[in-house]
Amino acid sequence: MIRNRIPDVVVRRLVTYLRVLRDNPPEAGFISSARLGDLAAVNGAQVRKDLALFGEFGKQGVGYPAKGLADEITRILGADREIAVALFGVGELGTALVRYLSVRRRFDPSYKFIVRALFDEDKRKIGQKLEGITVYSLADMQKVCREGEIKIGILTVPALAAQDVVDKAVSLGIHGFLNFAPVKVKVPPGVRVQQSDVTLELQELAFYV
Amino acid sequence: MIRNRIPDVVVRRLVTYLRVLRDNPPEAGFISSARLGDLAAVNGAQVRKDLALFGEFGKQGVGYPAKGLADEITRILGADREIAVALFGVGELGTALVRYLSVRRRFDPSYKFIVRALFDEDKRKIGQKLEGITVYSLADMQKVCREGEIKIGILTVPALAAQDVVDKAVSLGIHGFLNFAPVKVKVPPGVRVQQSDVTLELQELAFYV
Repeated sequence: MIRNRIPDVVVRRLVTYLRVLRDNPPEAGFISSARLGDLAAVNGAQVRKDLALFGEFGKQGVGYPAKGLADEITRILGADREIAVALFGVGELGTALVRYLSVRRRFDPSYKFIVRALFDEDKRKIGQKLEGITVYSLADMQKVCREGEIKIGILTVPALAAQDVVDKAVSLGIHGFLNFAPVKVKVPPGVRVQQSDVTLELQELAFYV
Repeated sequence: MIRNRIPDVVVRRLVTYLRVLRDNPPEAGFISSARLGDLAAVNGAQVRKDLALFGEFGKQGVGYPAKGLADEITRILGADREIAVALFGVGELGTALVRYLSVRRRFDPSYKFIVRALFDEDKRKIGQKLEGITVYSLADMQKVCREGEIKIGILTVPALAAQDVVDKAVSLGIHGFLNFAPVKVKVPPGVRVQQSDVTLELQELAFYV
């Protein structure tokens, strides 16, 4: 299937399948569509239909090879390339994320996201390094983002600053954002925003406690 | 439907519906099952089936009232009660989360999660307060958790410390965890762990950039 023809809903389910495969590695190395569907909150027929879009992965009566399927989904998602990321807002959350992503990359060679630049407005932070990555002024965005071919922006700025940063980043060719600011940002068509929200995760837990 | 008979897959979809309703408030105040399904990556028939478990919410040809449906899902999930939370590991990520949750609670009276206690091993932090919440030693867990009737634990400890903290917390009656430590923790049946992972969100974005 042609990559840009894959519907958003299928992309979202592929990410869910990837999460399931990572969190529930089957002991025998194979996982059935029924089991994968159960864990991903869709039915087995949907799993088979989604995966059949990309070729023949499973074996009748055996299921899908878990490792091979995870690799293949990673490839379909385009997460097997090196992707340059910039992080905006080097406060507590931003700092924690940079450390997390650096450690992650150090221990997992298959992990292809590289934080290339950090941005902040605080003059005391500008010019400093965190995990070897330089903190730049927002005024230098144009120069840094062009050079670094930044594809994804992580937003850990205060809510009030988020829209301005996004507008400027979009104009510089950043078309994907992971937004930790507790505010909805507006973007033009073709630009993607993932809203990260601990609240919803707590709400799901609420059901069980 | 009896609350503890709702399958996990339905709970997960209800949380997704809640996210969709929050991120895409319909202008007319109503949302169709087809639209809700599109945004939640399931089909409309599944949406209608899931919601029909809990009563008659929608109107033929009009759809579901978005605000009323969100409130009802919150109630079904049990997230309309006050729920006491403890956070383990007051490092950068832990600190950022405590601040985020405090701000959130200040501005949204419908938000019922209260961080009652913080825990850390660092003697310099123990006895200090963050957003008005005291940092306790892990040695005081038993006393603090019993008094505070803590229901949910947020894990922002280092990976190597996570399992020990969880084991002790489970023994004190905490049966829901939101795990930011980059490690899988083992829990007995009946205990729920939500793994928070920025990696998967980046992988979904990778498809679009």
